[in-house]
Amino acid sequence: MPGPIRTVLKVDLKKAAAEQPHLHNRWHPDIPFCGTVKNGEVVKIECVDWTGGQIGNNDSADDMKNVDLTKIHYLSGPLEIETAEPGDVLIVEIQDVQPFQDHPWGFTGVFDKKNGGGFLDEIYPNAAKAIWDFEGIFCSSRHIPHVRFAGLIHPGILGCAPSAEVLAEWNRREGELISANTMDRVVAQPPQPMNAHAGSAEDSIKEKVGKEGARTIPGRPEHGGNCDIKNLSRGSKVYLPVHVKGAKFSVGDLHFSQGDGEISFCGAIEMAGIITLKFSVMKNGMADLGIKSPIFHQGPVEPQFGPGRYLTFEGFSVDEHGKQHYMDATVAYRQTTLRVIEYLRRFGYDDYQVYLLLSCAPVQGHIAGIVDIPNACTTLGLPMDIFDFDISPTGPAKQLDMGACAFTSK
Amino acid sequence: MPGPIRTVLKVDLKKAAAEQPHLHNRWHPDIPFCGTVKNGEVVKIECVDWTGGQIGNNDSADDMKNVDLTKIHYLSGPLEIETAEPGDVLIVEIQDVQPFQDHPWGFTGVFDKKNGGGFLDEIYPNAAKAIWDFEGIFCSSRHIPHVRFAGLIHPGILGCAPSAEVLAEWNRREGELISANTMDRVVAQPPQPMNAHAGSAEDSIKEKVGKEGARTIPGRPEHGGNCDIKNLSRGSKVYLPVHVKGAKFSVGDLHFSQGDGEISFCGAIEMAGIITLKFSVMKNGMADLGIKSPIFHQGPVEPQFGPGRYLTFEGFSVDEHGKQHYMDATVAYRQTTLRVIEYLRRFGYDDYQVYLLLSCAPVQGHIAGIVDIPNACTTLGLPMDIFDFDISPTGPAKQLDMGACAFTSK
Amino acid sequence: MPGPIRTVLKVDLKKAAAEQPHLHNRWHPDIPFCGTVKNGEVVKIECVDWTGGQIGNNDSADDMKNVDLTKIHYLSGPLEIETAEPGDVLIVEIQDVQPFQDHPWGFTGVFDKKNGGGFLDEIYPNAAKAIWDFEGIFCSSRHIPHVRFAGLIHPGILGCAPSAEVLAEWNRREGELISANTMDRVVAQPPQPMNAHAGSAEDSIKEKVGKEGARTIPGRPEHGGNCDIKNLSRGSKVYLPVHVKGAKFSVGDLHFSQGDGEISFCGAIEMAGIITLKFSVMKNGMADLGIKSPIFHQGPVEPQFGPGRYLTFEGFSVDEHGKQHYMDATVAYRQTTLRVIEYLRRFGYDDYQVYLLLSCAPVQGHIAGIVDIPNACTTLGLPMDIFDFDISPTGPAKQLDMGACAFTSK
Amino acid sequence: MPGPIRTVLKVDLKKAAAEQPHLHNRWHPDIPFCGTVKNGEVVKIECVDWTGGQIGNNDSADDMKNVDLTKIHYLSGPLEIETAEPGDVLIVEIQDVQPFQDHPWGFTGVFDKKNGGGFLDEIYPNAAKAIWDFEGIFCSSRHIPHVRFAGLIHPGILGCAPSAEVLAEWNRREGELISANTMDRVVAQPPQPMNAHAGSAEDSIKEKVGKEGARTIPGRPEHGGNCDIKNLSRGSKVYLPVHVKGAKFSVGDLHFSQGDGEISFCGAIEMAGIITLKFSVMKNGMADLGIKSPIFHQGPVEPQFGPGRYLTFEGFSVDEHGKQHYMDATVAYRQTTLRVIEYLRRFGYDDYQVYLLLSCAPVQGHIAGIVDIPNACTTLGLPMDIFDFDISPTGPAKQLDMGACAFTSK
Repeated sequence: MPGPIRTVLKVDLKKAAAEQPHLHNRWHPDIPFCGTVKNGEVVKIECVDWTGGQIGNNDSADDMKNVDLTKIHYLSGPLEIETAEPGDVLIVEIQDVQPFQDHPWGFTGVFDKKNGGGFLDEIYPNAAKAIWDFEGIFCSSRHIPHVRFAGLIHPGILGCAPSAEVLAEWNRREGELISANTMDRVVAQPPQPMNAHAGSAEDSIKEKVGKEGARTIPGRPEHGGNCDIKNLSRGSKVYLPVHVKGAKFSVGDLHFSQGDGEISFCGAIEMAGIITLKFSVMKNGMADLGIKSPIFHQGPVEPQFGPGRYLTFEGFSVDEHGKQHYMDATVAYRQTTLRVIEYLRRFGYDDYQVYLLLSCAPVQGHIAGIVDIPNACTTLGLPMDIFDFDISPTGPAKQLDMGACAFTSK
Repeated sequence: MPGPIRTVLKVDLKKAAAEQPHLHNRWHPDIPFCGTVKNGEVVKIECVDWTGGQIGNNDSADDMKNVDLTKIHYLSGPLEIETAEPGDVLIVEIQDVQPFQDHPWGFTGVFDKKNGGGFLDEIYPNAAKAIWDFEGIFCSSRHIPHVRFAGLIHPGILGCAPSAEVLAEWNRREGELISANTMDRVVAQPPQPMNAHAGSAEDSIKEKVGKEGARTIPGRPEHGGNCDIKNLSRGSKVYLPVHVKGAKFSVGDLHFSQGDGEISFCGAIEMAGIITLKFSVMKNGMADLGIKSPIFHQGPVEPQFGPGRYLTFEGFSVDEHGKQHYMDATVAYRQTTLRVIEYLRRFGYDDYQVYLLLSCAPVQGHIAGIVDIPNACTTLGLPMDIFDFDISPTGPAKQLDMGACAFTSK
Repeated sequence: MPGPIRTVLKVDLKKAAAEQPHLHNRWHPDIPFCGTVKNGEVVKIECVDWTGGQIGNNDSADDMKNVDLTKIHYLSGPLEIETAEPGDVLIVEIQDVQPFQDHPWGFTGVFDKKNGGGFLDEIYPNAAKAIWDFEGIFCSSRHIPHVRFAGLIHPGILGCAPSAEVLAEWNRREGELISANTMDRVVAQPPQPMNAHAGSAEDSIKEKVGKEGARTIPGRPEHGGNCDIKNLSRGSKVYLPVHVKGAKFSVGDLHFSQGDGEISFCGAIEMAGIITLKFSVMKNGMADLGIKSPIFHQGPVEPQFGPGRYLTFEGFSVDEHGKQHYMDATVAYRQTTLRVIEYLRRFGYDDYQVYLLLSCAPVQGHIAGIVDIPNACTTLGLPMDIFDFDISPTGPAKQLDMGACAFTSK
Repeated sequence: MPGPIRTVLKVDLKKAAAEQPHLHNRWHPDIPFCGTVKNGEVVKIECVDWTGGQIGNNDSADDMKNVDLTKIHYLSGPLEIETAEPGDVLIVEIQDVQPFQDHPWGFTGVFDKKNGGGFLDEIYPNAAKAIWDFEGIFCSSRHIPHVRFAGLIHPGILGCAPSAEVLAEWNRREGELISANTMDRVVAQPPQPMNAHAGSAEDSIKEKVGKEGARTIPGRPEHGGNCDIKNLSRGSKVYLPVHVKGAKFSVGDLHFSQGDGEISFCGAIEMAGIITLKFSVMKNGMADLGIKSPIFHQGPVEPQFGPGRYLTFEGFSVDEHGKQHYMDATVAYRQTTLRVIEYLRRFGYDDYQVYLLLSCAPVQGHIAGIVDIPNACTTLGLPMDIFDFDISPTGPAKQLDMGACAFTSK
């Protein structure tokens, strides 16, 4: 008879993440295992929030502005999954995700354009923040009044370690992008020894991980990683390529909720918490399934709104300066989000409040048309039922007292 | 007591579209009205298919290869909506869309890379075709066996005419893109007098429309147009900006079904048919609602699959040559579609069959992460229940006899 | 290549139903076939409304009060399904249901307690009526203002003819109920020669059908019949027991919409129209599937409201006189409907308007608890989005001008 | 800033329920408050399972057979809700329900016909049991193999205490039923001093509660109580009539899942656990809302299956002996459940396994037709995706090894 589920990995929220040997913040095949899980086993894994505790439950965005981005994405792991070998697929069922009982809150942030930025940083360059309080399945924020919704709780990051070959490929191709960059912005993060955390690795390994280890910001096709897919929620089952013996599975960056795109970058409702996972190994799965990247089934319990309860906005690849871009879905999605900001500000919201809200509420971002040259068209579906007033398009808006989100001190 | 709904505009499928005065194939404010609708009225509008009948119900893709792209997108209209004026919003409720009773079929095509192309034309440069037969709400194709699904029936195109100013802006910005083009492909279509159809316009207007009229291929932010949004289905309500007196509303390019992205360009299940619309004018709606582009509510009857009945594929902005692109959702979505092709070909499908299928089946294309530099991540949800065999990821695939889609003759 | 779908059976709405040889209004194995359908074929079947045209599109319920209940339920058929034999299962896919184009309206009625009655006739004994106008997938009624919804269109009746043995059993058991009846109401309808319509049967058969033929009011376990299941809508697939050679399939009593229970008896939105069906025979299906009664899969396109958009009422088996009934789900459901009437009358509706509305709107009637002696508990979920004002439980109701449904003349 | 949510009431699973002063097992206005909650407050409440721990995690149904039904339904409470007074409505939002972390299992039972019985006890008179193990949101049972599903977690019982007048009415009407009973079965439970638990009441009150207190088995219209509504799950909001000052709210009988009807009586997946509730008082709510019984909104996160993923069975009010009942939805629902048992036994399940499964899996029990004399028709929708093999009606069934549920020892 099964007893309580084993917690394979604990974290200490009062201790610096960098000092906890079961955490790490780089992808590298040499980071040592911090635990072992049987094929078929269900375990609980504790996780810190993605900033490793840098953000406080308060009303200032100073911490957001000054966040140290070399100290983020502390992942729980890597775990050894028994019997897993390169070429296998690791099937991970997300049986539950919960915030810590005594830590019932999370945060959504906009980074300063000079330190992290975000999807709309050309227009909204300042730091901002919203704190969210959890009430069971629901959350609300004193910084974005008149909004409340059920969480679409999920891990932002999960994946298996790259092999040395896969890692080398990542560094090659991202290095090329960095080398070729002519934009006035950071386009990718190269390996960075400073504040690299290699778990319980001894010094020589630690140094190697610092020099070679892939940063955790981007998701990557070979393993998933920071894919930030809002629908990988409770009950989902994800099929992950295995590149090293024992899989070296890591997970972290738990989100109480997120919108498609996670547009403000620190955009989900970031939280510390506990994830319950079941691991199964499909031998030779990569070849048998013909997969190069993860695939998944969604779980059955994500919050449901009727289709008629979304208000959907259209956006096209013509930017805010009137410039026509060629089939650029990224530009189109940016325009789509701007359309929502324009719409919601009529009710009294500050633009930054909407920017934060679109990042974390369960908004649906679709690629509608991607072939009608020169315009890509994307849509964003906003669930009307997350507001406690009527946002439907019936005429001029009545302004409400919307308070303010947290901004930086002067 | 209301009687049968008035048909405001009829088409003749046996006659060339170019000869029918209630059709047109350019956006221009001077194309004359071809009918009048009261504010609040419900009417039926007949539409030809978007190629104006160039594609036949047969087993050769020669017609697809040789399609004349100057003779497409014949729209029904423009209709005068009483009381509508610039600055208003035209609310259009899509009360029904039906194929013609005696024309119960449609088609999905891949264009030749040299004549139209598509989202994956670098990889799949040849023309191909699938014919779909309609059985009530369902459709199936002799060219893509073992698949059957309920239509998500909708118009690919609807919108109000641009004002002269809006039209000039379109021509300016798209002209700049064309001028700056260094790619080995057509990036946008400038005005084209050849085969321009200006409805019942007299010769001088016809000439003007040919010279200035905007092509119908792209959707555009100011009015919607060819937005190709699969969810604008039965029961949807769309809010359209009005730019000219009387609105000059046009509609066409009916689709029995479409997937997000409509990736093969001629990608929906294209059909001729009848659309039932209710028109209402919201005075001063653009300012009151704060909208620059259309917004909409979906209807309540789109086909439902449970969330767990989708198999979802992830894709990232690293292209098939291993090149890292910066936050490019278009590249990511292309990769996502390639992942599905790789997966489904294991069951015996030809790649072109899957390319056609992903274009027209109700697949869900989401922007998952758009901020994790340098990788955009998109997902594509494939409903498993459209197949009559089990496509779930359980191991090696068993090949079935999948026949073939229509290809060109030698 | 398939052409337009064959219409196997036409009706003439201008002619008395009793005079049309492709209709009948009794269940009997000897009613002659009126057409033949191949195994695997898709056909269209035209149907009259269930009263055979007795109800008019007007503002008086006199026709409802005086309806002749011996002249109802004219069914289209029986059709011979090739290869079907007793013991087989006839699989019927409902591919579409549509009202006639030139007949875009339907009706919902309350019968007089003395002529038909209904679920609440002890409390609401008078006749009443609402006419519904169809606009594409939607309907609304001048008799029940501020309500509009998408139809859940379906046939009230479909089934195969009973064998002589099955028919004898029906007559035996219903005869026993009638014999034992001590209530002051009709409990079942015995065979009735008056106005029996046996299709194209010759006189001797006609007489036999009149004497023995089962009335069409009740659904029956052996074949389904008038099961009035609102979810047998577009896209559903139903598995019907076959009792006679050729199946002798009949269909009729089309509904534009219905609520669970169809409480006012003439409670759906009754209409004439066309149903598109696909027939397939499963040999030896009754034994192979182990079924005694029909089973079905719902279609994928029924109107969706989010779960949070229903307001749900509870009812228990304590009647309105304070009498405790033992585990009586019928009493409980009656109480549940009364709770909704009490709730909605606060907004200005007349009780009869709500009675009509609950009969035909897509309300969800569930058996919640059926074991907690002595109280059965049932629930009724009312979709809030069918109203154009807010019915949510926020405090005292504001009355609107609700006009009136049609009543009888003095 | 809110901290962790207050736990207003704890239970001790190792101690007899009868000895815990914060529990009670009768409805009576004089049971003393055991805690106070502010209007608007969110609290956690711990609950024992409904048998107070009589059932063990083992493979024998002896405990089920010998269960002491005077020692059940120990409810947590009653709680004083500040400001609540008779005539108000208490709004209770169910923010979460969770099993105890170290108690990740529950049970479903069939009682012996002579001690409790159930919906099908005429046919299945013996005791049986299934133990369910919880894995995050999912559950599975070693006693019913090849089945696994997400819980639809909810409280079976919640309500406010009756006033003395309401209590007297309950005793009057149920007493009349008991007096008039001529059936060979218990039809209702009168007050029973034996094992009455009146919380922390002093002896005189305790005696009074024993003599007068209403048993907890039935739900009742005036307050809800044991309504056993499966959809009162996470995120639901229920509106409860208040009959006494301070409301005296109680809750208990937590279910990990339940099917409509909870047919085996001990039919849900019964568990001990923690419920998180938010309480708000609507002054004068009963009159303002016009309610006599509870109403509710469902939460947004209940498990979703597509409509086409249910296999639905029909049942009619003709019993298994061929007797025709008049419009009896209870008989019809019993027949419907028997149809499912017949269908599923073909795959190798024992009838008792199916009886248990239908009690606790999220099956949808609808009242389809309640007016077609003499047959009531009900339906039961069985989600096919809870099985790990294909139960769709495609032909003869292949039997699997289904083991056995727990039965009694000889």
